[in-house]
Amino acid sequence: MEKNIETFLGCDNEFEESRIVIFGAPYDSTTSFRPGTRFAPKTMRSESFGLETYSPYQDLDLEDADIFDSGDLELCFGRPELALKDIENRTAEIIDCGKIPLMIGGEHLVTLGAVRAAAKKYPDLNIIHFDAHADLRDEYLGAELSHAAVIRRVWDILGDGRIFQFGIRSGDRSEFKWGKDHVKTSLFGFEGLDEVISDIGDKPVYFTLDLDVLDPSVFPGTGTPEAGGVTFKELLAAVLKVSKLNIVGMDINELSPMLDQSGASTATALKVMRELMLAVYDNKFSE
Amino acid sequence: MEKNIETFLGCDNEFEESRIVIFGAPYDSTTSFRPGTRFAPKTMRSESFGLETYSPYQDLDLEDADIFDSGDLELCFGRPELALKDIENRTAEIIDCGKIPLMIGGEHLVTLGAVRAAAKKYPDLNIIHFDAHADLRDEYLGAELSHAAVIRRVWDILGDGRIFQFGIRSGDRSEFKWGKDHVKTSLFGFEGLDEVISDIGDKPVYFTLDLDVLDPSVFPGTGTPEAGGVTFKELLAAVLKVSKLNIVGMDINELSPMLDQSGASTATALKVMRELMLAVYDNKFSE
Amino acid sequence: MEKNIETFLGCDNEFEESRIVIFGAPYDSTTSFRPGTRFAPKTMRSESFGLETYSPYQDLDLEDADIFDSGDLELCFGRPELALKDIENRTAEIIDCGKIPLMIGGEHLVTLGAVRAAAKKYPDLNIIHFDAHADLRDEYLGAELSHAAVIRRVWDILGDGRIFQFGIRSGDRSEFKWGKDHVKTSLFGFEGLDEVISDIGDKPVYFTLDLDVLDPSVFPGTGTPEAGGVTFKELLAAVLKVSKLNIVGMDINELSPMLDQSGASTATALKVMRELMLAVYDNKFSE
Amino acid sequence: MEKNIETFLGCDNEFEESRIVIFGAPYDSTTSFRPGTRFAPKTMRSESFGLETYSPYQDLDLEDADIFDSGDLELCFGRPELALKDIENRTAEIIDCGKIPLMIGGEHLVTLGAVRAAAKKYPDLNIIHFDAHADLRDEYLGAELSHAAVIRRVWDILGDGRIFQFGIRSGDRSEFKWGKDHVKTSLFGFEGLDEVISDIGDKPVYFTLDLDVLDPSVFPGTGTPEAGGVTFKELLAAVLKVSKLNIVGMDINELSPMLDQSGASTATALKVMRELMLAVYDNKFSE
Amino acid sequence: MEKNIETFLGCDNEFEESRIVIFGAPYDSTTSFRPGTRFAPKTMRSESFGLETYSPYQDLDLEDADIFDSGDLELCFGRPELALKDIENRTAEIIDCGKIPLMIGGEHLVTLGAVRAAAKKYPDLNIIHFDAHADLRDEYLGAELSHAAVIRRVWDILGDGRIFQFGIRSGDRSEFKWGKDHVKTSLFGFEGLDEVISDIGDKPVYFTLDLDVLDPSVFPGTGTPEAGGVTFKELLAAVLKVSKLNIVGMDINELSPMLDQSGASTATALKVMRELMLAVYDNKFSE
Amino acid sequence: MEKNIETFLGCDNEFEESRIVIFGAPYDSTTSFRPGTRFAPKTMRSESFGLETYSPYQDLDLEDADIFDSGDLELCFGRPELALKDIENRTAEIIDCGKIPLMIGGEHLVTLGAVRAAAKKYPDLNIIHFDAHADLRDEYLGAELSHAAVIRRVWDILGDGRIFQFGIRSGDRSEFKWGKDHVKTSLFGFEGLDEVISDIGDKPVYFTLDLDVLDPSVFPGTGTPEAGGVTFKELLAAVLKVSKLNIVGMDINELSPMLDQSGASTATALKVMRELMLAVYDNKFSE
Repeated sequence: MEKNIETFLGCDNEFEESRIVIFGAPYDSTTSFRPGTRFAPKTMRSESFGLETYSPYQDLDLEDADIFDSGDLELCFGRPELALKDIENRTAEIIDCGKIPLMIGGEHLVTLGAVRAAAKKYPDLNIIHFDAHADLRDEYLGAELSHAAVIRRVWDILGDGRIFQFGIRSGDRSEFKWGKDHVKTSLFGFEGLDEVISDIGDKPVYFTLDLDVLDPSVFPGTGTPEAGGVTFKELLAAVLKVSKLNIVGMDINELSPMLDQSGASTATALKVMRELMLAVYDNKFSE
Repeated sequence: MEKNIETFLGCDNEFEESRIVIFGAPYDSTTSFRPGTRFAPKTMRSESFGLETYSPYQDLDLEDADIFDSGDLELCFGRPELALKDIENRTAEIIDCGKIPLMIGGEHLVTLGAVRAAAKKYPDLNIIHFDAHADLRDEYLGAELSHAAVIRRVWDILGDGRIFQFGIRSGDRSEFKWGKDHVKTSLFGFEGLDEVISDIGDKPVYFTLDLDVLDPSVFPGTGTPEAGGVTFKELLAAVLKVSKLNIVGMDINELSPMLDQSGASTATALKVMRELMLAVYDNKFSE
Repeated sequence: MEKNIETFLGCDNEFEESRIVIFGAPYDSTTSFRPGTRFAPKTMRSESFGLETYSPYQDLDLEDADIFDSGDLELCFGRPELALKDIENRTAEIIDCGKIPLMIGGEHLVTLGAVRAAAKKYPDLNIIHFDAHADLRDEYLGAELSHAAVIRRVWDILGDGRIFQFGIRSGDRSEFKWGKDHVKTSLFGFEGLDEVISDIGDKPVYFTLDLDVLDPSVFPGTGTPEAGGVTFKELLAAVLKVSKLNIVGMDINELSPMLDQSGASTATALKVMRELMLAVYDNKFSE
Repeated sequence: MEKNIETFLGCDNEFEESRIVIFGAPYDSTTSFRPGTRFAPKTMRSESFGLETYSPYQDLDLEDADIFDSGDLELCFGRPELALKDIENRTAEIIDCGKIPLMIGGEHLVTLGAVRAAAKKYPDLNIIHFDAHADLRDEYLGAELSHAAVIRRVWDILGDGRIFQFGIRSGDRSEFKWGKDHVKTSLFGFEGLDEVISDIGDKPVYFTLDLDVLDPSVFPGTGTPEAGGVTFKELLAAVLKVSKLNIVGMDINELSPMLDQSGASTATALKVMRELMLAVYDNKFSE
Repeated sequence: MEKNIETFLGCDNEFEESRIVIFGAPYDSTTSFRPGTRFAPKTMRSESFGLETYSPYQDLDLEDADIFDSGDLELCFGRPELALKDIENRTAEIIDCGKIPLMIGGEHLVTLGAVRAAAKKYPDLNIIHFDAHADLRDEYLGAELSHAAVIRRVWDILGDGRIFQFGIRSGDRSEFKWGKDHVKTSLFGFEGLDEVISDIGDKPVYFTLDLDVLDPSVFPGTGTPEAGGVTFKELLAAVLKVSKLNIVGMDINELSPMLDQSGASTATALKVMRELMLAVYDNKFSE
Repeated sequence: MEKNIETFLGCDNEFEESRIVIFGAPYDSTTSFRPGTRFAPKTMRSESFGLETYSPYQDLDLEDADIFDSGDLELCFGRPELALKDIENRTAEIIDCGKIPLMIGGEHLVTLGAVRAAAKKYPDLNIIHFDAHADLRDEYLGAELSHAAVIRRVWDILGDGRIFQFGIRSGDRSEFKWGKDHVKTSLFGFEGLDEVISDIGDKPVYFTLDLDVLDPSVFPGTGTPEAGGVTFKELLAAVLKVSKLNIVGMDINELSPMLDQSGASTATALKVMRELMLAVYDNKFSE
């Protein structure tokens, strides 16, 4: 008999043949309000069996896509630097094999570890960032490594003009003020996305998708829900556009299963993940 | 003193005078993911007292409509054929008295029992099917009597060209492929509904409404929520159109009260039910 | 060391300097269906720390607004008249100091206490009423002081032509019939709001906002959710318009935290409250 | 077809032949902390189908006991006096037919209505009171008709030496002080119960059972759980003893289904109810 | 990189070296009341990481025990016979390799499949059965394959004098009556267990543990909780005694994670499982 | 009008007159399993109004006890050292005024900050530690500042023979092994407590009470519930004994309100807290 192998639905290929490699980053140690995103990778994997492998949106099927699920990292709580190092290492390992990492958070801070690895490999990296929150604080209650400061830390690496935010509708005044000079922010929705995509062209892109960009009606299962977000159809259209870029890394984060009594938020996260994987797998850069 | 009689709000007429007869089919034995729809009839009946009898949408009132609530069947779990037989018998009993049955599920498989009775009485029966899922599998893990195969079983009875699906957005590839040749499927919404209604004319119609056709934002309280569904206003408009057909049987299914912590999904199911009953009661075929 | 002071986020000014004064009315004794709105003031205050003080919608910040939080009343359950008297007294105390009260309910009946005080001070008071329910019953199960009769009781004070309802989609037939002759009701949404605002001009306005005017997809955390409501964006736009009137009192009510497992309804209520406070603080009548 | 009749499991006899008559008093308007006991009668009736009719403790079966379920009263919220009058009337109607009423609360205040009727019929009435709380306040926040004052109101009718409390472990200092002179209170458990039973002899007894006498480990589903209560086995033994007295009225109250996510508290309430009904039905006074 | 392997904590040995082999039977299709035990195997595996491998009760450690986790069966809902066949086959496969199967249910019906395999291999098999419910019905609503009839079906195989029940406190009258002639039942607790153990000697034993034998205070997370059960310490002592018998198969069933909001029932199930595995692994028959 | 002051029930004295000073340490950043203890101080303060100030166990009343509630610290997540420093400072500030700090956690790591301050002031400090878990790891996944290592860190300060553990029933093998040589551990309950109390005599004691020492039946609302714990009555008796020592600091920790759907765990925590405060206030060292 074989040991019990568990993967995301339809992501049971071998590492070597895969173009996309999934891993979980179950970490929420710096979450300042409602915690629980640490449970997202396990819950999403487990609940993925309620999903179909086939997408009627793209007429594509996960059964035809070579995707590998490498399981979850075991991350140190209380010492963010250690956790980020482990994330960076796993990301680098995947990228170095010519594959595209898809990290499932966890709180948004995990993105920093993955971007560190991606930026080392691709110095001309751009960031597409979907989120309700600007995440541009310089520090939060004394912590520079905080979910609320993660995009600021990413900027520390990449500098001006390389970060493109969409859907933003929350932050303190200083974040918005600082942001105007250093990143491109589209408030409330996806206005300007086509132009950004056109400007980026073939340059390598890391795509970080904080699911709270969705309206809380669609996605209540997250720690800091922000009314006034985008609909599922708007998000799906935007994801399909971004997926045509030269994606070299990506993550989906901030699902909090403890806040998802009905399971609908988890199901929605999984559908977004399926569509993203299929579209990236199917784009010209992945071939 | 009288015994304790409980009916859906405003549905306390006598059987003989009624045009519409409600019954519950509290069955979810083949549900493969999250169970619990067995609790829908009782919960909906109990919570109906939070609803008003009057509809400001149609300016009609349940107090003026002769509707009878015959309570819930007691169905055998573990032997679907027995349960379906009981459902078929109750449906036939109602239809044979010239009344319109309204069955409250339960999982979607219960529709098969009701359609068997309706198709015997009305050989030229058509099916209007609102759902997120195609339900066209030939079998599911060895079971031909499964919620995931129910419309396929209905097709076994009715054959090609008699089944009209709307709102479908989930299924495996083979279902969509098979469906193209045998049923008419409108993806994601209600496109083409007017034409279907016009084509059907006054032929007898069984209307089966799987509430997960609604977007999970509106209706999270169901076992397999599928993002990308229709809004309440879109559903209401479509239901009012269908209600003008020659409805000979109908059902509402897949509410799962255990997944509805706030009660909002149950309340929404009840409002859809009220509008459906009022509109069917008020149409020209019911007079 | 100082005692533990807790206020709504950013509402920690001194009473004397403040233009707006918040208080909680934790009362739901006449709620006939699902109770629990009594917990709204405490829960909203506590959860307000998940909110930002800055509004990207209005480019205003609670840190710049002089708002005072006077805490919650301790109200007698079982004797509505006593509770209403306490509410009236607190409201009068605030109004008499030339400040604008913002009451956080509780069930909708609490509005009656506040309107009594406001109408004494401003005999030409008008009411803007956002709600799913007409609340125009003459009595409910023998109680004239009931959440379902509150606007009728307000009419007892103000008479015809002074009450403007928006978003209404539930009530019994008699309420709608009575309402046609005595109040102005806009069904389902905000049609006609611009005209009403223009007609009111500078006259004093009490604004009562029952949060169940929102669609249950956006706001499931309330006792009698009614499908078919307005979106957050529609509500925000309407609130910003009303806020430009000569507001002399206002309330937000009917959040029920026990029904808000994810916290998203509470967060939405808080965002509405922030935008309302900022807009009223910033209007020409407040200066 | 017959209308939908719903009764507590095994309590489907005709009124005339019955010795015990059940009714629900779904009222919790004066509850000062967590509300929700209004849902107990409906929920208990609905969940009773998870129970067996047979008791292995007493080797008795509800199928052999003539018990009638007369359904729930519809009580006015916000005006306790009206609600109490309705309860008194229903109780009197049952007692006047020579039957024993079993009322299902609701909050504990409902007991007052039933005791009023019982004391009229039986001037030498005694009260056995199981509870965590003394309920001996003279008033609560200005209300004399309050769950926290209910036994004090009962004392107003019966006077000294007729009230026997067991399991009490919460109250304010003044209640305990007052109680020493007017009622007999056994703290924490059932010490002294045998003696009380022996002293009462065959005098008529009203038995009021506040389920929060149980330890919260056994019965968390109640509004004000108090650690340090009795076990199920201790309660069962005490109930069986009390049931041998000349019971002329009884009630079970303070289950709050909204706080009973697992359903275990409701199931426990139902088992206590079954054992109580069987034992009273089987005692020498009922024959 | 390796695929994602998930096992119960400390049960990550190879099949060949293992004495005990775990598998999950996620099936609850015949559950007549609250469903959800299908989620127990996955949830227990996932939550096992909150447990320690070391037992201070036995001074033994799972790290020293060779145990293999073979994952969960995928079972057909709606056709119990198919599901039971799959369970029988997996059990036979393990037994035929000289190993001890430990099945995690699922509803109690799953035991029948395992006992069929064990009884084939060991014709002199005895059953130790811990449960709140007798499970001795001949059929339930027409179904002979029902959780409520499972021990009766086991008796069909083994006949009189081979089944020993403990903790039983629920059933209909006919079950108790029938049981007196055919099985040995100890009501409410473990009285007589020592004698049974002594009588069985080294005959092969299948041990089936329905976790609802525990009091609902300890174990609310199950579909039909029955007050009056045993404490954890009583169960642990009894399990350790049974574990010294010649165990040839065992199962743990009826945890329902959807009813376990706090996670405490799942944690308790896991601790029972750990102690059972360690004790059986350590007994003289396993060496 | 005054600002909104919120304190634990009956703890509204002035700092100067108080013997006991409460503060909250809402921190759970290193929690490795289910997080959420950060919400305990706020939730306990808010729910304390469901408690009585009077203890029938001790015939003492919080109204007679001078206790001050200094509110909650705002602690940095992600950098435990910063959080511990803030806790140490607050503790020192209280101790230096000759008062006894009572800290409400939070995860158990917070104890380290308080002990650092207490040990500086009282070099001969002893620790009484009630807990389910040994908390004696040297590090956990690379973190030395972890809830699972907190008593080991305390030992780093105090050394051998000064730490007395009770109720311990979980840990890895190495913890138990190491513990034998360095601390005194009583497994499963309070055996030996009288002797320890007698040995300690007048020496200063810090009392740390991890509420998961209680059995999960009594206290399910905690992150890592461990079956086999003590009852409320056992804990109460032990707390009353410890309270007679020369207590110089104390804490209560590990309540997780998100896991306490019924509120019963919070209510139990509050009752323990009341009894502890009254007993310490009333002991001879406090006079």
